Amino acid sequence: MLENDIYKSTLKEIREKSPLVHNITNYVVMNNTANALLAVGASPVMAHATEEVEDIATISSAVVVNMGTLSPKWVEAMEMAMKKANELNKPIVFDPVGVGASTYRTDTALKLVERYRPSVIRGNASEIMALAQISNDTKGVDSTVGSDIALHAAQELSKKLNNTVVISGATDYIVTNEKVEKVTSGSPIMAKVTGMGCTATSIIGACIAVDADHHKASLSAMEIMGQAGNIAEKKSEGPGSFQMNFIDALHQI
Amino acid sequence: MLENDIYKSTLKEIREKSPLVHNITNYVVMNNTANALLAVGASPVMAHATEEVEDIATISSAVVVNMGTLSPKWVEAMEMAMKKANELNKPIVFDPVGVGASTYRTDTALKLVERYRPSVIRGNASEIMALAQISNDTKGVDSTVGSDIALHAAQELSKKLNNTVVISGATDYIVTNEKVEKVTSGSPIMAKVTGMGCTATSIIGACIAVDADHHKASLSAMEIMGQAGNIAEKKSEGPGSFQMNFIDALHQI
Amino acid sequence: MLENDIYKSTLKEIREKSPLVHNITNYVVMNNTANALLAVGASPVMAHATEEVEDIATISSAVVVNMGTLSPKWVEAMEMAMKKANELNKPIVFDPVGVGASTYRTDTALKLVERYRPSVIRGNASEIMALAQISNDTKGVDSTVGSDIALHAAQELSKKLNNTVVISGATDYIVTNEKVEKVTSGSPIMAKVTGMGCTATSIIGACIAVDADHHKASLSAMEIMGQAGNIAEKKSEGPGSFQMNFIDALHQI
Repeated sequence: MLENDIYKSTLKEIREKSPLVHNITNYVVMNNTANALLAVGASPVMAHATEEVEDIATISSAVVVNMGTLSPKWVEAMEMAMKKANELNKPIVFDPVGVGASTYRTDTALKLVERYRPSVIRGNASEIMALAQISNDTKGVDSTVGSDIALHAAQELSKKLNNTVVISGATDYIVTNEKVEKVTSGSPIMAKVTGMGCTATSIIGACIAVDADHHKASLSAMEIMGQAGNIAEKKSEGPGSFQMNFIDALHQI
Repeated sequence: MLENDIYKSTLKEIREKSPLVHNITNYVVMNNTANALLAVGASPVMAHATEEVEDIATISSAVVVNMGTLSPKWVEAMEMAMKKANELNKPIVFDPVGVGASTYRTDTALKLVERYRPSVIRGNASEIMALAQISNDTKGVDSTVGSDIALHAAQELSKKLNNTVVISGATDYIVTNEKVEKVTSGSPIMAKVTGMGCTATSIIGACIAVDADHHKASLSAMEIMGQAGNIAEKKSEGPGSFQMNFIDALHQI
Repeated sequence: MLENDIYKSTLKEIREKSPLVHNITNYVVMNNTANALLAVGASPVMAHATEEVEDIATISSAVVVNMGTLSPKWVEAMEMAMKKANELNKPIVFDPVGVGASTYRTDTALKLVERYRPSVIRGNASEIMALAQISNDTKGVDSTVGSDIALHAAQELSKKLNNTVVISGATDYIVTNEKVEKVTSGSPIMAKVTGMGCTATSIIGACIAVDADHHKASLSAMEIMGQAGNIAEKKSEGPGSFQMNFIDALHQI
């Protein structure tokens, strides 16, 4: 498989360079996110105070912004970090968790995307459709539709922002205005473990930290997720053991 | 066992309806809570910003309020979500973590309970006694007495609030003004894993989301906890593996 | 080994007294920290609201302050808890996570250390050097140098503050102005699991809660970490299973 080759070289580079990845993410997943980034070889740092996000973004190789448990002070910090990343030409990956579920989420996501043009956006199908303002039927933070349904929305979004948009689901789509790649590896149990999407976003962060081709880097990240998911599924008896085995698998591949 | 039948039908209904459960909970347990809700078949959403809690409560089938790591801004959000739930006649479960350990906790818990009359309250024996203002000797967040000691306090509380009160411990009591049910399943190691009480509260949230009989729903929830605890105990070598196996067990039963 | 005897008696005392340990710590590690404290026999409480930290510090036997995900309101709470602990003569352990990575972190760490003189400070080599203002090349939250490099910095810091300074790494150093002890047990995989340093800090908190000899208590804590690390390593296939097995091991030793 071509994808296999791509993700292996990206992973090798992450492990050699151990890039610092700055995460402004949600309370639910912080521990998993940090462990996933360590397991692939990156060096995670979590920092959200407006007093320091510019300093931290400056020393980092990529910025991950995830609005899972957003509030005004955190959004202010996200804006400062993203602005600084834009100034320094550092890549940003944005995760619009639950966009569409509340007016506040939708307004925040649209504002962040329009003002700071993230290099990559990753969401489930419902989120990508809500962000592209094509549909607004998000139910909480879980997708209500298959990822193929959102493909057109992802293409529109990518065209408008001139960036990479990733729809994750049973099939992942990595989309730019010009091309679409699919990743079909992974396990259905991933939908039963909280924060797997957030983990994907942070691994995209590690990949764009070492590869300026953000479409290729995002493809590598989703392939890493899928490969680790396949390995973990075989060893697991449920979502609890899957969550643990997935981190082991990220470390082993 | 009668209880077995009750929890199985509740669980079946949760898995069919996949109710959205809105959690305003503490930082320590958010990941476990989300995974436990996913494992029983519910769809968890964590949201605490005053800018969106009314929107999220509106689209949810139940609201879980847990004051484990409370602060003023979060308490304000709890009040807004509970008020909205009251207006829309949506059930609320309240977890008065550590009530009695500080004046702030006690004042907040009494205020929330009196103003918004949660459908169900779940705490350990010390917490239920502190909330009923019968005793105030809470030591941090762990109970200092057996759950039977708090039975009278739970009955007084339930009478005053006309709701269901759950005391969890080696024996769980599910109490209304008129009846008391016991659950004795579960494992002693549950007291050695942080947030098992918080998990019980959120599973009560999933059960009251699908069953308007809150006493029966709470009984189902505690039986689900106990059954999963029994299964997990057999596979575990300590509290670390128990925490993981418990999520697997919730998914399997 | 002498160290073995020391840690066993400390552990016995923690399990007999079950001391309440007040943690003001970061979002990433709260769950692990609470579980680690429960596993060694202590009773953890997490509380950060300025409205209650004095009450909670008052009923606790030790205060753990970890600035991993600091922000102004939390720093205000740290100051209040540390001040109260000073007044009541309760021991404090301080973890200067990522000091040196931003001006805000450095300023905060120096302020907390100078004003409230923690009984014990634990950091990795980069952090101890940044805190002693000898070097400032911290890269995020992971150390860039071996722990022996920071030994002189730790001695200077301990001399100035008349306290115990712990450098954790492949070899841990437990340092006072007069003596240095080493702990070499543990596993290299600990560097691949987020928050193992934070866990060490909280276990120091449990040990100083029962032993007024803070150098000895810190030595016990690091030996407990090392012993549990050795046990967990044998059972683990990666950092995911290590994190779980480590909690089991803390419970078993």
